[in-house]
Amino acid sequence: MRYAPLTQAIQGETVDAWDIHFKATALKEQDPSVIVLSIGDPDFDTPAPIVESAVKSLRGGDTHYVDIEGRDHLRNKIAADHQGRCGQQVTKDNVILLAGAQNALFATSMCILEAGDEVLVLQPNYVTYEACIQLTGAKLVPVSMDVDHDFCLDENALLQAITDKTKAIYFATPSNPSGVMLTKSELQFIADLAIKHDLWVMSDEVYSHTIFEGEHVSIAGLDNMAERTVTLNSLSKSHAMTGWRAGWAIGPTELICHLSNLSLCMLYGLPGFVQEAAYTALTDPNALAEAEQMRVTYQRRRDRLLSCFNQQPLLTCVPPKASMFLLVNVSQTGLDGQAFAEMLFEQQKIGVLPATAFGECAANYIRISYVVDDKQLDDACARIEAFMAQFTQVSNE
Amino acid sequence: MRYAPLTQAIQGETVDAWDIHFKATALKEQDPSVIVLSIGDPDFDTPAPIVESAVKSLRGGDTHYVDIEGRDHLRNKIAADHQGRCGQQVTKDNVILLAGAQNALFATSMCILEAGDEVLVLQPNYVTYEACIQLTGAKLVPVSMDVDHDFCLDENALLQAITDKTKAIYFATPSNPSGVMLTKSELQFIADLAIKHDLWVMSDEVYSHTIFEGEHVSIAGLDNMAERTVTLNSLSKSHAMTGWRAGWAIGPTELICHLSNLSLCMLYGLPGFVQEAAYTALTDPNALAEAEQMRVTYQRRRDRLLSCFNQQPLLTCVPPKASMFLLVNVSQTGLDGQAFAEMLFEQQKIGVLPATAFGECAANYIRISYVVDDKQLDDACARIEAFMAQFTQVSNE
Repeated sequence: MRYAPLTQAIQGETVDAWDIHFKATALKEQDPSVIVLSIGDPDFDTPAPIVESAVKSLRGGDTHYVDIEGRDHLRNKIAADHQGRCGQQVTKDNVILLAGAQNALFATSMCILEAGDEVLVLQPNYVTYEACIQLTGAKLVPVSMDVDHDFCLDENALLQAITDKTKAIYFATPSNPSGVMLTKSELQFIADLAIKHDLWVMSDEVYSHTIFEGEHVSIAGLDNMAERTVTLNSLSKSHAMTGWRAGWAIGPTELICHLSNLSLCMLYGLPGFVQEAAYTALTDPNALAEAEQMRVTYQRRRDRLLSCFNQQPLLTCVPPKASMFLLVNVSQTGLDGQAFAEMLFEQQKIGVLPATAFGECAANYIRISYVVDDKQLDDACARIEAFMAQFTQVSNE
Repeated sequence: MRYAPLTQAIQGETVDAWDIHFKATALKEQDPSVIVLSIGDPDFDTPAPIVESAVKSLRGGDTHYVDIEGRDHLRNKIAADHQGRCGQQVTKDNVILLAGAQNALFATSMCILEAGDEVLVLQPNYVTYEACIQLTGAKLVPVSMDVDHDFCLDENALLQAITDKTKAIYFATPSNPSGVMLTKSELQFIADLAIKHDLWVMSDEVYSHTIFEGEHVSIAGLDNMAERTVTLNSLSKSHAMTGWRAGWAIGPTELICHLSNLSLCMLYGLPGFVQEAAYTALTDPNALAEAEQMRVTYQRRRDRLLSCFNQQPLLTCVPPKASMFLLVNVSQTGLDGQAFAEMLFEQQKIGVLPATAFGECAANYIRISYVVDDKQLDDACARIEAFMAQFTQVSNE
């Protein structure tokens, strides 16, 4: 049978990226000693107040069709939080609930991109950006962050990538996979370019509640950026709600109208009980306290991992200021990220992601998620030390 | 800012269709005497065993990422049910869970259609088909059912609509809005054409569990149709689960692979607790018994409405064999469906849908949903009788 060319645009390396992860999770079902550090799924369950909010809603018969854009009280709360954090003046009409930030990225891309467009993507970037951009017929133009300077913005590379076909700049801050946050001056540089060349800016901020040091800045709050910025966020990471598929886009009201039309034929709204749970996540003091406790835990784990890797002369880390990930440069072992990850899995049953999936500039890196408890993390550190011994020996010979 | 041309393809009449519905639901919040018969949302809450299954899953921590295609036990059950009903040999690899049949229609259209394609759609058809087809760049070619013969298939019209650009035939059986079921011989006619011209067939069967008389036939079970048929279904209507957004597509394994790639960047799977609830819906005897009781109730309501309309010489009905809808021809009042629906709402506070939204051939019809309790239904019948008096008087003068 004849398929659409789109089916080619959504397959490829970005899909293959998960191979080791899938192998690791499959093996873990038979062998509990496998340690899965390859996915950004918090090991915490969703806080009880959020779960109980959904339970109450479900038992109360909140199982019918809902407003396509989401319920007013939830949209109002999201708008108020966003405005409070970054200063952009928004109302509920600037907000639409969608099935996760992933769905928001997908839907927004469909509404703003078309064949022939070029999208500048700061790399390394989350793996599904490629598919979301390419399925519209647009082209992903990678703009490598400055690998030699802890993945800060390479202003020159960004400048040189702009052509008359450029339609948008996509990035995540804090970044998945690097945990790097764009500074206010870096964001101002991007904003100036976007205004000068009339570009959309897609700011994926799903890790903006999982920050260990430094200040998160939303580009939407910078002067004259509101009209051209789409801010994505979700509860997946901040509240351990990955499985709920609850996220949103914040942008110009015209975009929200288009997204609403799209959602009518794509999704037809988020479940009411998921929306009530989301509202509880954003307002209930106990839920918020539990989310904060998760953040503290991620920070402790990050520090634990950093001290492990700092003892390995052949491994260098990009110290993450946020997120639940750590990028590790493995090139001094003589291996690239893919080979290192495969060998680590085979020898030590630890699943990590070869960071090449996030962009060619990260080909020498692996991404480690710290989403396991202290015991497993200690175990993982011990296995990594054991694993690294062979490379030390080789280099000493 | 510059938006994609797609944003034009997803707006239009099909979106406007809901205007009276939105007005009616808004007014109902202030005025409980409003009767909303304009949406296919069951008035029943989801059966308790299904709700409790979700509760158990939620409280058990089933709040993490899931397999993109859906869980094996659920896909296996859907495959087994489908095979048992229509004979098509399928396994879980022919099934993918998506966020409702709406999402399945959307995603499948993206995987099989492209710019330049023509899609034959049996009209009247559900309102979002247009957007799902047009957003791919394909063109919806309406093929009117035989309005003069209770909306049976107009074989000649279908034959004449085929061109060398035709890529697929889309229909719903039972139909929303007409409640008409395609017979086996009608489906065989469609199948022969599809095979001859190498076409995809999209068979939307979301009302196939809400049948009052006659036998539902799935075109996927006819000889040589498996490779080219996509069967859509969901729990929204059969189990009063509209708000849960749980549906699926059944098709060739290659299509399921493409849909899986698409879901990776579009949705990233259905919530685990929704999937557990869905499995309970399909297997729990009490849940199934409650679903059957809903079907019996819809049948009783349909009969109540039919006897009301049969007393109105100026109104003629298409007797629905299934679904929760009734198409009523209002042309003998001198009004079309739109004018009739607006006047009925203004005078009697009853919200119905002008059926023109479902296709030009239904411009003289209104669609009435019987998703209210007996008391409201009796009230609605009384108001319709009162409403009709003015037309009787006019025609007697």
